[in-house]
Amino acid sequence: VRPSRELARSPTSQSPCADSYALKPIGIFDSGVGGLTVLKALRARLPHEDLLYFGDTARVPYGNKAPATIERYACNIARYLEDADCKAIVIACNTASAFALDAVRRTVSVPVVDVIGPVAARVADSPDNQTIAVIGTRGTVRSGAYVRSIERQRQGRRVIQQACPLFVPLAEEGWTSGPIAEAIAEKYLQPLFASEPVGHLILGCTHYPLLEQVIRSTADRYARGVQIHDSAGYTAAAIEELLEAGGLSGPRDRVGSSRFVVTDDPSAFLGVGAAFLGEPIDSAEHVDVR
Amino acid sequence: VRPSRELARSPTSQSPCADSYALKPIGIFDSGVGGLTVLKALRARLPHEDLLYFGDTARVPYGNKAPATIERYACNIARYLEDADCKAIVIACNTASAFALDAVRRTVSVPVVDVIGPVAARVADSPDNQTIAVIGTRGTVRSGAYVRSIERQRQGRRVIQQACPLFVPLAEEGWTSGPIAEAIAEKYLQPLFASEPVGHLILGCTHYPLLEQVIRSTADRYARGVQIHDSAGYTAAAIEELLEAGGLSGPRDRVGSSRFVVTDDPSAFLGVGAAFLGEPIDSAEHVDVR
Repeated sequence: VRPSRELARSPTSQSPCADSYALKPIGIFDSGVGGLTVLKALRARLPHEDLLYFGDTARVPYGNKAPATIERYACNIARYLEDADCKAIVIACNTASAFALDAVRRTVSVPVVDVIGPVAARVADSPDNQTIAVIGTRGTVRSGAYVRSIERQRQGRRVIQQACPLFVPLAEEGWTSGPIAEAIAEKYLQPLFASEPVGHLILGCTHYPLLEQVIRSTADRYARGVQIHDSAGYTAAAIEELLEAGGLSGPRDRVGSSRFVVTDDPSAFLGVGAAFLGEPIDSAEHVDVR
Repeated sequence: VRPSRELARSPTSQSPCADSYALKPIGIFDSGVGGLTVLKALRARLPHEDLLYFGDTARVPYGNKAPATIERYACNIARYLEDADCKAIVIACNTASAFALDAVRRTVSVPVVDVIGPVAARVADSPDNQTIAVIGTRGTVRSGAYVRSIERQRQGRRVIQQACPLFVPLAEEGWTSGPIAEAIAEKYLQPLFASEPVGHLILGCTHYPLLEQVIRSTADRYARGVQIHDSAGYTAAAIEELLEAGGLSGPRDRVGSSRFVVTDDPSAFLGVGAAFLGEPIDSAEHVDVR
């Protein structure tokens, strides 16, 4: 992998605190808006940290692209975030986490956290030993990344999977409740829960937290008591530990900022992004990539 | 626009009939599988012609990309098809038709037909003068290409539009009938038909013919007698006229072939493509593009 250096330098490198590690931002990237659910969790857990979000909206979605292409895109973006002075990087995209984590870690010198490892490790370790169900895009399910990650943590732990391709467009259309969302959730989840008793359900896509309510009510009908795990919270916890361990945490007596850069026209991002973040996004900058 | 020449030369240039215009193939391109509904119409109308289909599956979808990017991709592909000895080119993608028709025509020297012009011209000319409704992706609706094309043909003809973003994933998931398809069609179309009497409905996306039955039954509930127009048939008719006029038609006493090239892994294309074509696709070749 030879990530290019074509991306523009970020203006944050002019920040007056550029030489203080603790005050550097955390970089978060995704193919589009989905990673904003991870940014939201980071804000809630680390409100004192500055965050720089990179949405690769000109090249979204990653899910149907070749692994080598995803690796190239991800390394390219990670290099941009490192150049923008980020002290740590979060791969807030399941497809990029599945295919590009190792390559990104080889590419940059700052610590990197993905969205699959933290939730997989914690759920794999749950003492009940019940079956874990994973739902995600077709690409994430095919990659087998959750299965491998859980197996690495706890050999023999049973994992079943279900791709739910309509959940992403449904969330982006804003139809997160009502009869259509319920019927689609029913169609995907009923066969999953009917196959065997399930104790845990991992939302293996950053879009799915928007559908959590309808997923929960459907799950409750077929697998009462199933625990639903959203990777955002686990990822935020992993970043916090990592910053603490490395002495990289910012001072807790300040309020952090959030900046957004995207590779396509920012206006569409602002509209859909607000639904994912749960509050308006004032502005996003456009970054040109080839 | 400076389309690159990076694409590989096609093996069809080795055909023994390469010097006979009449036996050269017709090139058809789309961002993915949707254009196969146009290929199907071409096959039905011109069964004696050879067809070369180019699906840009590594860069699908075009709908959310910047116009300049779509222009570059489309010109690149058109150049590939011209190099592969095609005698005419069909832009079988509504987004590329909306943003890149003029650029493609400037780029290649063979005749080019798009999927918007032919249907828009014919429906605009319908003598009843009733309102025309257009449904499509968000990108196509925003581009205003149908509205402009109809206006050019018949000034003052009333056109209304509705974006139906979930129709494409629905068609690709294969859920083309049943309660979910019905509920989604109802949600998009009821407000469209409730606003005013509508005489014509244009399916402004090559995916939508797969949903024609559910669209028709919904339309019949709110706008009884509405005429549904699928651009594929009009486009095939336009290509036929153009070949006739230019003396480019192949002899009618032969059976034409179809070849498929795609920019991403061909296996996914074969599966979903078969549903769009209505029959199995034996093989597709991979073409590398950067």
